[in-house]
Amino acid sequence: MQTIKDLLIEEMRDTYSSETQILEGLGAMADAATSPNLKQAFQTHRQETANQVERLKQAFKHLGADPDGNTCEATQGLIAEAEEVMEEGLPNELLDVALVMAAQKVEHYEIASYGSLKTIAQDCGESEVAALLGKTLEEEKATDEKLTRLAETEINKTAIAASPSA
Amino acid sequence: MQTIKDLLIEEMRDTYSSETQILEGLGAMADAATSPNLKQAFQTHRQETANQVERLKQAFKHLGADPDGNTCEATQGLIAEAEEVMEEGLPNELLDVALVMAAQKVEHYEIASYGSLKTIAQDCGESEVAALLGKTLEEEKATDEKLTRLAETEINKTAIAASPSA
Repeated sequence: MQTIKDLLIEEMRDTYSSETQILEGLGAMADAATSPNLKQAFQTHRQETANQVERLKQAFKHLGADPDGNTCEATQGLIAEAEEVMEEGLPNELLDVALVMAAQKVEHYEIASYGSLKTIAQDCGESEVAALLGKTLEEEKATDEKLTRLAETEINKTAIAASPSA
Repeated sequence: MQTIKDLLIEEMRDTYSSETQILEGLGAMADAATSPNLKQAFQTHRQETANQVERLKQAFKHLGADPDGNTCEATQGLIAEAEEVMEEGLPNELLDVALVMAAQKVEHYEIASYGSLKTIAQDCGESEVAALLGKTLEEEKATDEKLTRLAETEINKTAIAASPSA
């Protein structure tokens, strides 16, 4: 690896691996969620994630590079955490709170990834690639904000009300 | 685990494990960084992280709980990624770019964690705990912004200038 464009491609491969893992993870999280609104939010973001994978493929095409060849270990850890949450046998209301937390960690991982990638693509003069990455970045930020609102207006309140000693 | 306070404590243990891993990771990243400004930023944040660990211990005291007993797998993955970057034998300028990216992923992980924890602590009526978590949240956001500025004003520019085909 000799140029910043090589690094951009390598880091995009990491993000591509990340998105494909998240695509699968979101399906399981949508199945596990108790709140219909949370279930819907995960399903909507799963569809969005599928589009983001396609958008990344377009970006790789622009760069004349292959998206495969990297496994994102950080995402493996994030998904493992979400799986733990689903296997812990939590009461439904707490499960939903924990699922939102796990999902927001994933969202922030992606916000950091796409934020850096977009800046580097711009710096490399790859404006079309930067635009594709920027579009996904905005979607990730919007999903994070949507989850914050859902936690504040519904999920956390339900868990508080259901907590025996609350 | 029956109440949202139990979940708060469990998730704080995850973050405690995360911070102790990051404390070690930042030392290695400061050693590896080439740019004196980046090295300094990592060293400063390492000191800040040590304070954040103490702040978490105070929060556990307020809750009458023990900070130990959890290992944060997501942080293990994030640190593994940073270690990979350091072992790849990258040219110095690209190493610094990749280190900033790895560090911002860690910062965003913490921003998501402390954001959720602070909200849940507030919801539980644990205002002192929420204040402690909120203080760290602001530090993490400031560190992320500092790294973005450093990337834009120095690190990425240096890497572009040093890239053979740029």
